[in-house]
Amino acid sequence: MFEKDIYVRRRAELKKRVGSGTLLFLGNDECGCNYADNTYPFRQDSTFLYYFGLPYDGLAAVIDIDNDQEIIFGDELTIDHIVWMGTQPTLHEKAHLVGVDNVRPSADLRSWLDRSLQVRYLPVYRAEHRLKLWRLLGIMPGEEKPSAEFIRAVVDMRNHKQPEEIAEIEKACDVTSDMHIAATKAIRPGMYEYEVAAIIEQVAASANCSLSFPTICTINGQTLHNHYHGNRINEGDMVLIDAGAERPSGYAGDMSSTVCAGKIFTSRQKAVYDIQVASHLAAVEMLRPGVPFVKVYERASEVICAGMRDLGILNGDPAEAVAAGAHAMFFQCGLGHMMGLDVHDMENLGEEFVGYGGKPKSTQFGRKSLRLGRELEEGFVLTIEPGVYFIPELIDLWKGEGRFKEFINYGELEKWRGFGGIRNEEDYLITATGSRRLGKKIPLTTEEVEALR
Amino acid sequence: MFEKDIYVRRRAELKKRVGSGTLLFLGNDECGCNYADNTYPFRQDSTFLYYFGLPYDGLAAVIDIDNDQEIIFGDELTIDHIVWMGTQPTLHEKAHLVGVDNVRPSADLRSWLDRSLQVRYLPVYRAEHRLKLWRLLGIMPGEEKPSAEFIRAVVDMRNHKQPEEIAEIEKACDVTSDMHIAATKAIRPGMYEYEVAAIIEQVAASANCSLSFPTICTINGQTLHNHYHGNRINEGDMVLIDAGAERPSGYAGDMSSTVCAGKIFTSRQKAVYDIQVASHLAAVEMLRPGVPFVKVYERASEVICAGMRDLGILNGDPAEAVAAGAHAMFFQCGLGHMMGLDVHDMENLGEEFVGYGGKPKSTQFGRKSLRLGRELEEGFVLTIEPGVYFIPELIDLWKGEGRFKEFINYGELEKWRGFGGIRNEEDYLITATGSRRLGKKIPLTTEEVEALR
Repeated sequence: MFEKDIYVRRRAELKKRVGSGTLLFLGNDECGCNYADNTYPFRQDSTFLYYFGLPYDGLAAVIDIDNDQEIIFGDELTIDHIVWMGTQPTLHEKAHLVGVDNVRPSADLRSWLDRSLQVRYLPVYRAEHRLKLWRLLGIMPGEEKPSAEFIRAVVDMRNHKQPEEIAEIEKACDVTSDMHIAATKAIRPGMYEYEVAAIIEQVAASANCSLSFPTICTINGQTLHNHYHGNRINEGDMVLIDAGAERPSGYAGDMSSTVCAGKIFTSRQKAVYDIQVASHLAAVEMLRPGVPFVKVYERASEVICAGMRDLGILNGDPAEAVAAGAHAMFFQCGLGHMMGLDVHDMENLGEEFVGYGGKPKSTQFGRKSLRLGRELEEGFVLTIEPGVYFIPELIDLWKGEGRFKEFINYGELEKWRGFGGIRNEEDYLITATGSRRLGKKIPLTTEEVEALR
Repeated sequence: MFEKDIYVRRRAELKKRVGSGTLLFLGNDECGCNYADNTYPFRQDSTFLYYFGLPYDGLAAVIDIDNDQEIIFGDELTIDHIVWMGTQPTLHEKAHLVGVDNVRPSADLRSWLDRSLQVRYLPVYRAEHRLKLWRLLGIMPGEEKPSAEFIRAVVDMRNHKQPEEIAEIEKACDVTSDMHIAATKAIRPGMYEYEVAAIIEQVAASANCSLSFPTICTINGQTLHNHYHGNRINEGDMVLIDAGAERPSGYAGDMSSTVCAGKIFTSRQKAVYDIQVASHLAAVEMLRPGVPFVKVYERASEVICAGMRDLGILNGDPAEAVAAGAHAMFFQCGLGHMMGLDVHDMENLGEEFVGYGGKPKSTQFGRKSLRLGRELEEGFVLTIEPGVYFIPELIDLWKGEGRFKEFINYGELEKWRGFGGIRNEEDYLITATGSRRLGKKIPLTTEEVEALR
C-alpha cells in the first residue's frame, strides 16, 4: 500500500474528471477452486486497489461525487475469525490508512445505492460481479451498462504511471528478469517443460511475488496460447518462455525469452532469431511521446517481412506486405500492450479505451490482435514483444485459400513448417524524450543467450 | 484420465443408485483473476472429473436415467482457436475416450433440460454455477435445491476409493512427502517464510503437480487460518508447514510438518511436540473398519489432555475434560478429513453427508470443526492431523469468561502464551483389517526432524 495522500489525491482527481453521480467500486471476493473454502489466491480488483488500496476480499466502495462522500462497505471480523486468524487491525483502521473514515456494513450498500440518482459502474469480468450488480441494482446478468465517462477517467489516470507506480513496476520487472535469467541458465536437453517452469516460479515466490499471468514455457513457441508444460526438451529445440512477477502491491512485470535447448542455436534458428531481434530493436528505437504505436507495430512488422524476403519466403515490398496484412503469416499477435496493476493493463475496461483512446481497432487478422495503437505519452508503460512464428495450421489454411500468394512463397515456407516460434519481450516506460527499459537486462540476442548456456 | 471402462462403470452404478430423473453435471469454467482472460489455473469440478473425466472448461453433462442416455454438452474449437492453440482432438474424440458418444452443442442444454421431468443437481460453490442454474433452470441465485439422493449416491461412491484412485492418491502423497522433506532440510534462521514456501512449491511443480490447497508455511502455527508468508524465521522459532500436491488427474495429498528453525528443538518445544506425536500415534493405532472416527478424535484429544495435565496446565480427568470440551483450548480443529479428488473430499457436497453419513454434526466449539465422525469403512482415505496450539486470543476469551476453570489452570497456561502451535499430518487408507499410510514417510518425531536438520 502507498501513503494515504496518494489515494486521497487519486480519488479527488477522479471526482473532478467524472464530475457527477455515484461511482461504485466492486472489490473482488474469494473464488472457490473445487469447493468454496479451497480458494484460488485472492486478487483484489485493480481499479479498487488503485483508488482504495485495500487488498482484502468482501469489500465495495462508493464515491458519491454529488455529495462529496467516500465510503468503504465491508464487515468487521468476528471473535471467531480472530481466534482462527489472529488479531488484525479493524476494517476502520485499515480504511483510515487509505484516507477513508466512513466505513459501513456490507448490508447497507444496497439501500445506499437505492438513494443515489445515478450509479456509475465499470465493466464486470467475474460471475460474482454480475450477481452483485443484480442484487445491488437489479441489473440482469449480461445486461450491464458500464459508464463510459467512468471508464475514460480511470483509464486516463491509470495509463499515466506516477513515480510510486513506476518504482513498483520496476521491482516487478527486476524479479521478472531474474526469472528469465534463471531459466536461461538452467535449461538442459532431457528436462521437461514443467521443470523449467518450476524454476521460474520459484524465483518469483522466493522474492515474495506471485505470477502476473500463467507461465508459458514451451518447445512449441508457435502455439501462441500454450500453457501445456508436459513436453520433454530435446537437443535442437528452442524453449519459448513468457512469464512475469506480480508484486504484493499488484504491479506486474512481463517478459519473454527464447532459449536454445543445447549450448548454441542452429544456423537456421539464428537466421530467424536475428530477424526477430532486428524487429525488436527497430521498435524500441521509435519509442517516444507523440509516436502512434500502430506505426511502431508497422515498422516492426516491416522488419520481419524484410527478413522473410531475405530468407526467400516473402516476395515484394515489405511495407506493401504489411499494409495488406501478409506479415500476419509470421507475426500474428500484437507488438505490445500497456502494463501496470494488470499485466494487460485494464483489459477489463476495454482495449478500445486503454490502447486506442476510444477509437475502433482494426479488424484485420494480425493487426486486430494489437492491444495498443494510440499515440504514446509520457508515463505510459508498455511491452515490446515482436515475434516470428511458423504456425502449421495457419500455413495450411492460407495456402488452401491461396491467400496473399503475391507475397508469400508457399513452396519456400513449407521448408520452415516445423521451425517453431521466437519471441523476446521487454518492458518500457515512455519518458519525456524517449523511453527507458524497466528492470535488469535479460538476454535479447542469440549471443547473449548463448553466453549464459 | 483413466480407462474408458472405469467411467462407464461409474456412471452405470450411479444410475442404479439414484434410480430416476435427469442428473445434471456442471463442469467448471475458466475464472478471470483481474480480467477475464487472465485466468486462474483451470480446475475441473471433481464430480465431473469422477464421472466424465474430461479436464476442460466450458462443459456440462447429463445422465438421463429414465431414458438411459449420457450426453456431454460443449462446443468444438473454431479454426481461430486452432490457429492459436494448435491442433487438438475434437470434443467428440475426447468424449469418446470416456465412453460418451453423444456430444451436443452447449446451446442445446437448456431446451434439453426443459424436456426433462425431474432435473437433479448438486450444490453449487461458484458464482458461475448460480448463473448457470438460473439460465438453464430458472432457479434464482441463493434458492438452489440440490438433490439429496444425487448427493448421497455420489458421496457413497467417491468415499470408497478404488484401486486406480488409490494409486493416484499415493503418487500425490509421494510428491507431498518430497515437499515436506525438502522444506525440513532447507529451513534456516534468517530465511523468510515465503522462501521456504517457494522451495515447497518448486518440488510440486517439478513433479508436474499443482498445489492441492494454498500452502501454509508459518512461524505462527497457532494461527490456524494463516496464509501469510512475510515473516522472517528466527532461531528458536518453529515453522509449521501444511502443504500438498495435486496430480494432473486431480487427486490430492495433504501433510503437515513442524520444523525447528535451528538444529534442534528446545526442551519446552520437545515437551509439547511429544504430546502431539503421542496423540497422533494413538489415533493411527485405532484406524480400522467399524471404528467411529469420532472415537478416534476423542482418544487423540484425551492424549493431548493427559499431556497438558503432566505439564500442569490441565486438572482433572482427561476423558471428562474432552467430554466437556475443555480440550479445545489446545486442539481447536478436527483430527482429520476425507481426501481424494478434493483435499477436503467433497466439501462442496456437505460434510454432514461425506463425514457424518447424513447425521448432524456436534455444535460444540472444537468438536464442530471435526469434518469426519462416521464409522470407518474399507476404502476410505483420510488425514490424521492432531495439533497442539496456544492461541492468545482464545486464552484471553475463555479466561475472561472463566470458562472451564475446573479443568484449565490459567495461571500455568499463561506461561505458554507465546509458544505457538504444532501439527504433524499424514494420510491413511482404511484397509480390510486396519490402515496403511500413503506416500513416503515424513519426519514425525522431534528426533526424525532433527536428523534432517
